[in-house]
This record gives sequence, C-alpha cells and structure tokens, in this order.
Amino acid sequence: MIKTIEGINRRTKACGTAARERIDQLTKPLNSLGRLEELAIELAEMTGDPLPTVTPPGVIVFAADHGVAKEGVSAYPPEVTAQMVFNFLRGGAAINVFSRQIGALMRVVDVGVAFSFPEDVVANADGMFVDAKVRFGTRNMLAEEAMTRDETITAIEAGISQAHELIDAGAKIVIPGEMGIGNTTAASALLAALSGKEVTACVGAGTGVAGERLLHKIAVVQKALQERSPNAADPIDVLGKVGGLEIAAMAGAILGAAQRRTPVLLDGFISTVAALIAVRLAPACRDYLLAGHRSQETGHALALSELGLAPLIDLKMRLGEGSGAALAFPIVDAACRMVREMATFAEAGVASGGGER
Amino acid sequence: MIKTIEGINRRTKACGTAARERIDQLTKPLNSLGRLEELAIELAEMTGDPLPTVTPPGVIVFAADHGVAKEGVSAYPPEVTAQMVFNFLRGGAAINVFSRQIGALMRVVDVGVAFSFPEDVVANADGMFVDAKVRFGTRNMLAEEAMTRDETITAIEAGISQAHELIDAGAKIVIPGEMGIGNTTAASALLAALSGKEVTACVGAGTGVAGERLLHKIAVVQKALQERSPNAADPIDVLGKVGGLEIAAMAGAILGAAQRRTPVLLDGFISTVAALIAVRLAPACRDYLLAGHRSQETGHALALSELGLAPLIDLKMRLGEGSGAALAFPIVDAACRMVREMATFAEAGVASGGGER
Repeated sequence: MIKTIEGINRRTKACGTAARERIDQLTKPLNSLGRLEELAIELAEMTGDPLPTVTPPGVIVFAADHGVAKEGVSAYPPEVTAQMVFNFLRGGAAINVFSRQIGALMRVVDVGVAFSFPEDVVANADGMFVDAKVRFGTRNMLAEEAMTRDETITAIEAGISQAHELIDAGAKIVIPGEMGIGNTTAASALLAALSGKEVTACVGAGTGVAGERLLHKIAVVQKALQERSPNAADPIDVLGKVGGLEIAAMAGAILGAAQRRTPVLLDGFISTVAALIAVRLAPACRDYLLAGHRSQETGHALALSELGLAPLIDLKMRLGEGSGAALAFPIVDAACRMVREMATFAEAGVASGGGER
Repeated sequence: MIKTIEGINRRTKACGTAARERIDQLTKPLNSLGRLEELAIELAEMTGDPLPTVTPPGVIVFAADHGVAKEGVSAYPPEVTAQMVFNFLRGGAAINVFSRQIGALMRVVDVGVAFSFPEDVVANADGMFVDAKVRFGTRNMLAEEAMTRDETITAIEAGISQAHELIDAGAKIVIPGEMGIGNTTAASALLAALSGKEVTACVGAGTGVAGERLLHKIAVVQKALQERSPNAADPIDVLGKVGGLEIAAMAGAILGAAQRRTPVLLDGFISTVAALIAVRLAPACRDYLLAGHRSQETGHALALSELGLAPLIDLKMRLGEGSGAALAFPIVDAACRMVREMATFAEAGVASGGGER
C-alpha cells in the first residue's frame, strides 16, 4: 500500500495543453463541445497522452457483507449479497447489462461475502470471479470494530492488486463498483467521520428504507460513531472501525489505478466515499478521478463536494454496482474519440471562421 | 404530408404498463434506475413493444444554406455549409465520430446547399449522400420570403421520405441533425413567431457571435419578423417566411418517424424548433419525442418548455449536427437493454426485499 501511495504522480499539464491546441483546430465552432473538451484535456493530463483512449473500460465489482446488516438497516436480507454475486456471474444484473453495452472487461471480486462459493462457481466463471476474501463479512460496528487494522490494509491491497491486474489485462479506465447489503450504512458512517458533518446529512434510503426505518438507520450510525470513536485524521482507523471490506478494496482499486496513471470513473455514493478515503490516504490520486453519475442517495452530494467533483450525468438513479459510471462511460469515450478522430479545419479544407472563445 | 400527419397514432399505454410490471421484477431495488425506467416505459409505449429496442440508431444530417447568412449573422462564411458536407462524407466531423461510436446508420441529405456537388462525390459516398435539393439555399428573409409554400412542403416531404428510407434500412430510432450556416437565425425567428415570446429570448451565440454582432443578429430577426409578418397559426407559413430548407426537412423527418412509431431523439436548438413545427402540424407526434441534450444556445430552453421536454444530458455543448443526441443515445439504448436483458428476482433466485416505491 505504501509503495502504491508513494508511486502516484500528479497530472501532466503539458499533455492537456497539447490536447487543447488540437481541439481548437477541429472542425467545429470554438468551445462548442463544452464539457467534452474539458474531459479530453483532463484525460490527456491523466494518461500523459494528448490523444488519450479509454477503451476498453474495466469494471470491478467488489462484494462483501456487513455485520451491521443484522440491525435491519437495509430493505433486503444479508443473503442477497451472495445471491447477487451468483446473478453477476450469470450475467443478469444491471452492471452486467451495461458492461456488455460498453464492451467492458468485468470482474467480480469477493473480498468478504459471508458465504463460501463452490469451487465449480469459480471454475465456470471464465475468470470473471476472483476470490480475495479477507473474512466472512465485517463485524457489527455497533458492537465492535468492523475490521482490524490488518484486515483493513489487506482489503485495500486486494483492491490495488485487482486494479493492476485489470489494467494489465488491457483496461484503460477503471470503474469501481460494489455489492454489499448494509454498505450505505457503512459509507454513511465513513462520510460523517471523514467530513465532520451531521450524520443526518450522510444517511439516505439506500436500497429503499424510509420513515421509521430510516430514523433507525440514522440512530445506528450515530451510536456506532459514538461507540467506536474513529480518528478522522487516520483513514485506515475510520475504515476499520465502521467497514466495509468492499469499500476498502474500492479505495485500493482507486489508488492502484492512479499509480498506473489510469483514469477512474466513479459511480455513486459508495464509490465516491471510497474515493474520499483514497484521497485522504494519497491526495495526488484526486488527479485521476472523474465523477460519472449523480446519485439520489442523500450523502452523495456531500461526498462529491468534499472531492470537488461534478458528475457527468444525472438520471435519478441509486442502484450502485458501478451502474451509473457504466452509463456515463460513453461520454468519456466520446471525448477521446473526438480528439483522436475529428478532422482539423486544415485537413478538411473548411474555413475556420472567427468564433469568439 | 397530409397522409403522414393523419397516419400518426398516439402511444400504446398498455405496452408501458407491461414494461413497468417487468421492470419492477428485475434484480434491483424498486425504482432505483430512476429515469432509465421511465425511458424504457416511454419507448415501450412509442414502439408498441414492451421489450423495445433502439439499435441501430439512424442519424440524418440535413444540409442547406440560408439567404440571411449574407447579413453577417454567423461567425462563419456561407461556404462552410458545403465544406462541412464534404467533411461529413469523408468522416471527419463530430457527428461522424459519434455516429461511428454508436453504430448509427448515417445519411447526409442536401435539401438546399448553395453548391453543386460533383457526380463523383455522390457516387463515392457509399449511399451516405442523398441529393434532395429543393433550391440553392433560401432567399434572404430580410428582403423576401425565404421559401414559397410549395418549396416548404417539398422540403418537409423530403424529410418524411428520408426518415422512411432510414427506417426501412433498419433504423429503430431517428436522430435528426443539421448543417446550415445561418440556421440559428432562422430557428430563432421560427421560435419567436411560434411561441409569441420576445426575440431576445430566442436569439443566441450560434456558432459564436457576441457583443455587437449578437445585437445585429437580434435586429435582423426582429426586422424580418416585422417585414414578413408570419401567421403563427399556420406553421407552413412561418417556415416559408423565415426558412430554412433543412429545418423543414427535419420537421418532416420527425413526422415520418412518428408515422412509423419510431422514437425521435432530439439534439439541440435547431432540432427542437423543428420538432415544435412538427407538433404544431401534428400534435400526436409529440408522443414520439425524446430530448437528448440541453444546448447552451439561448432559445433551446424555451423550445423545450413549449414541448414539455427535459433533456437526458447537459454537457454545455452548442455544436448541432445531431451531436448532442448521438451522445445521449447510449442512455436510451441502456434503457432498452435493461428491460430486455436483466434477470428477474425469480429467474436469479434473489430475495426481492421490501423496498418502498
């Protein structure tokens, strides 16, 4: 982990300048592609290539269970985490559909599901399933620390390794996704601890709790933070005290991608909180983040503002798995294709006009 | 034209209901895919298929010149219209890049470019180029009527035919795009006449005019409307008096698609104004419209509100050609794939939980 953190470099501004020069010569009114132009410049700076590419993308869905799920904080029973892993491996979940659409390399990484997947599941998954289980779910943050410091670091390192492996397999951008019943509770606790903001600003409906159940979820997070008293200056301590394993692994994947100068396209609430942890561990990794989708989940706006990120799309979604990022991916891809494939005024023999900047 | 207008049916609500029933059984928290779910239902209603598809999309770029361009209302000289047609045929424009990205069938239709394209251009364009020229650009709306009533109807009918041909070739959704130096001036005049709103609310930077030149553009539109005095109750009269040929053809393409129960994905200002004309001619065609992108062009918000449409994405663009719609297309595609490809709770053996609607 330390080696990864120390190995993250800042963006290369000169490559962004080169991309801007080319973009201003392309056959379109100056600045008429708005945010797509800014994206192309950011990607050039991240990758160190004035003509960047993000194809194929890599989607990593980290799955794990949460001890706190037994407190009734989710609309779904904890068994759904393992059931959804089977659904991922059969190709029936939203993230499978959207990953196929964008031609993504996809991995499902068990970092802590409270279930033993049979050998044949692993064998028949065509390399999609990765067993990196740290433990069978976190401990219940209400009663004890969710993870030890060692477990936390092991989960982060699993994420780093998975990002590296996916990049070695060809992924040009990393989309970290997740599955874990109870994980909006953990992410809300993380955000409240790291931001210092009120718990009520950090807790939302998750899979769909409202009314009394939402008040209960808020109370669980408040009590856990009081009892565990995480040290906001130490992200590993915060992560260990409230969990979860998949959020730690996502933070690791973000660090691992940044180390390889590979852009990261964030999904919604959970992945943005994971990014906040990654940035607290290694501020330079902020340089490699793009926000894909604005989630309906309460704490997402706060997590985004802590990182200074503005999402590309807003479709009123709150599914997770990486789904919002996968839907935003074609826009990121289009930015690269624009700068790589459009003709310049000179190439096309088009009069370049006098549009103001 | 009359046969097309009379042949447009309303949406089939029952197909939307069937799509909603399926969506609520899919392996995700209820309503967690937000706007994507609404889109899938709308597409089911439009197409009459509870499992709709929009692949492949069809992009039609209608090109024409505007007599008013000689008044200095654009940042570019009028020759750029023909030069950009050559660029389209060589694949170097933004709409080419984004059409390739989304696997679109693409046509470039000359309905009124003030240039004679050589025979070999037509022959070598692999069917991408269609000659449907009505005349060599519109007349200058400041001095006379831009088009006769016959020319206007001929241009609309060219658009209807082109939509039908693209649908016959396999297109499952139609993206009308345009190229025409001076066409934001014509579209602004159309919008002011049809909406009854102030000209200043309808005129914007277009390809990039500002300051004195923008004030001049506003004055040109105001004077043209005073001199021509279009009849807002007669969309053909309005279109004829201010132009343009490509806007008339886009309105026709929208009518032609609606007649075939094929969804239309609108781009920015010009295409939304063309849709407003189509809806004034045939109110039922509103049922087949989706707004792709929110343009930076001043009048777009007004045109959208006249039609009651909310765009899917907002990337601060103002390019036209159909580019914003092409960038929004993957979201529409994802909505169809979601309802067609995701597993239900029963199929996946996942506990369906109790998320509130």
